[in-house]
Amino acid sequence: MKKIFTKTGSSSESLARTGMVETYHGKFETPIFMPVGTQATVKTMTPEELRECEAQIILSNTYHLYMRPGSDLVEKAGGLHRFMNWKHPILTDSGGFQVFSLGHLNKITEEGVTFQSHIDGSRHFISPEKAVEIQNQLGADIMMVFDECVPYPSDHEYVRNSVDRTTRWAKRCMDAHRNQDKQHLFGIVQGGMYHDLRKRSAEALIDLDFPGYGIGGLSVGEPKKIMYDVLDHLMPIMPPDKPRYLMGVGSPDALIHGVLRGVDMFDCVLPTRIARNGTAMTSEGPVIIKNAKHFESWAPLDSDCQCYCCRNYSRAYLRHLFKSNEILGLRLLSIHNISFLLELMKGIRKAIKNDCLIDYCQAFYRRYYQEELVFNFIP
Amino acid sequence: MKKIFTKTGSSSESLARTGMVETYHGKFETPIFMPVGTQATVKTMTPEELRECEAQIILSNTYHLYMRPGSDLVEKAGGLHRFMNWKHPILTDSGGFQVFSLGHLNKITEEGVTFQSHIDGSRHFISPEKAVEIQNQLGADIMMVFDECVPYPSDHEYVRNSVDRTTRWAKRCMDAHRNQDKQHLFGIVQGGMYHDLRKRSAEALIDLDFPGYGIGGLSVGEPKKIMYDVLDHLMPIMPPDKPRYLMGVGSPDALIHGVLRGVDMFDCVLPTRIARNGTAMTSEGPVIIKNAKHFESWAPLDSDCQCYCCRNYSRAYLRHLFKSNEILGLRLLSIHNISFLLELMKGIRKAIKNDCLIDYCQAFYRRYYQEELVFNFIP
Repeated sequence: MKKIFTKTGSSSESLARTGMVETYHGKFETPIFMPVGTQATVKTMTPEELRECEAQIILSNTYHLYMRPGSDLVEKAGGLHRFMNWKHPILTDSGGFQVFSLGHLNKITEEGVTFQSHIDGSRHFISPEKAVEIQNQLGADIMMVFDECVPYPSDHEYVRNSVDRTTRWAKRCMDAHRNQDKQHLFGIVQGGMYHDLRKRSAEALIDLDFPGYGIGGLSVGEPKKIMYDVLDHLMPIMPPDKPRYLMGVGSPDALIHGVLRGVDMFDCVLPTRIARNGTAMTSEGPVIIKNAKHFESWAPLDSDCQCYCCRNYSRAYLRHLFKSNEILGLRLLSIHNISFLLELMKGIRKAIKNDCLIDYCQAFYRRYYQEELVFNFIP
Repeated sequence: MKKIFTKTGSSSESLARTGMVETYHGKFETPIFMPVGTQATVKTMTPEELRECEAQIILSNTYHLYMRPGSDLVEKAGGLHRFMNWKHPILTDSGGFQVFSLGHLNKITEEGVTFQSHIDGSRHFISPEKAVEIQNQLGADIMMVFDECVPYPSDHEYVRNSVDRTTRWAKRCMDAHRNQDKQHLFGIVQGGMYHDLRKRSAEALIDLDFPGYGIGGLSVGEPKKIMYDVLDHLMPIMPPDKPRYLMGVGSPDALIHGVLRGVDMFDCVLPTRIARNGTAMTSEGPVIIKNAKHFESWAPLDSDCQCYCCRNYSRAYLRHLFKSNEILGLRLLSIHNISFLLELMKGIRKAIKNDCLIDYCQAFYRRYYQEELVFNFIP
């Protein structure tokens, strides 16, 4: 399998590493956070604004695009990059997660999944082959295999059967993939919260030699301690020469704990979703902009931040926009939150290169959470 | 009274003229269209985007800002320009129109108007002095006198009494104005659809020697023919050395008919409001972007347009954004519609300078409305 990841640095205090991933639409640095553009748009933002926030790669959701406007239309547009005017790397998920969480699930069989659309109730069948075909039409630089994301909690027997089926589906996805030159297909390690099943999933997928691996089925409602524990056991057996992507994770603490355990890629709707609800992430913790205490505050959201929002607008003005239901408010907080997380990841990459990652994360933790980062590394 | 208007060109076929208005925050060219930023933001747009659309002056609404966030707060911010980060000219209306249309009106007396807020039902009293005080706090470059905008239709006696009170209020506004160096106060000609009362209003206000004049009480539900007829009788008696501002008008046909009759300034929420409803103004007429015929259209909204939206996005993508309720769609159509009207005004200014205004407007009319422009000029 084509090698797409180059390690460029590592941390002596953790499994963290820096690297570079090459794709048809350019390279991106890791560890990276990927803003989510579910419906072929990162909500409220233009591609140019994403670039000003230093976004290097974005994610889009196969399930949503398949439902609306349809992958046939996106293919006719010349692919997702041209459709939405984003010229840099894109990753699409497989739709598996949404089929299980958003659609009205009808039946899982060895062949695939039957479900009803969350938009119009229409009935659909997605197989591993279909999920790959749709992603080939969308043309993202990185695609994901069609997997089953089991709920938390699930019993051991159910998860074992699911993991084995997900492995068989992964093989079918690989065989169905028609555009290997321009699109890289990642496997997805599942296994619930069971260390033995995570190992079983990882080993089987490693045998299939994917160019990169997602870690799915985490951040699905379990306590964070359990997620970190799963990663503690899983990450040491993941191939060092391939990128690892922890799916659906985007809170600052989980990004930090993921990086310390060797994760390279993350995505989450969190920064843009909470932005639209009026919550900003700042170096001193979350700020709820509608709070009355900001009524007469002429300070920026975050005096350490150089984003467009913080360079130009006061908390008082932002609060006014939110109180008045003005779209500009949603835009400005989205820009800020995306900038904030990408700046955190940039700081993390720099700290890995300078081998001072624990100090960097500790300082961040104290200011953001007013508590100590707890991390025990057993090399 | 300080002279703020310089005539730079005129049309031999109409009363149209080009000019330049000087304000504390810079000059703007006329005829001009002013995008409306009701709540200290032109809905969905940043100041930088407005400038890219070549906006030279914007309007904001005193009534809304007085209600929320309050003119005291805007004053503490250093004025409206700093609050919203717009460094160029701003015009504020007096709040009169909104008090009569939006608020729950309780009582009009010689002293002023008592009404209830449309937001929280709180009771307020606005006098001419108060309207000027609020606008002095906001700090816009051009302010408007507090007037009564009578409904259409209204009987002659009611309108005559109202016009005379509006004239007395205009004098009180002038006397109350505390910041004449930096803010220009315009009178407002009222008089309903009665030629004699329009003349009565204009003559009384001209005696007061305002630096510019609004024409209020039009575009309030009357047929356009009646509006043009009022302008035909009124405009020849307006002072040639002062700017004339036709309030609340922004449809392409009314802009053209206003310019032909000597209007210099216009404002309207129309372009941004219809944009958010999914209607784009294009050189070949309105486009309803959700229409099924755009499903697979890779053309821009308007192939004659050079705005950010038309340079980068297809109708198919815009339709997808609207069908998916994505904010980026509202943004892109707002940018386009503002660009479209400002481009029309730029073309009008150029055509006046080249003295080919009728030809220019005729060509526009035929493409946009698929009909002939009818205009009879009696010099």
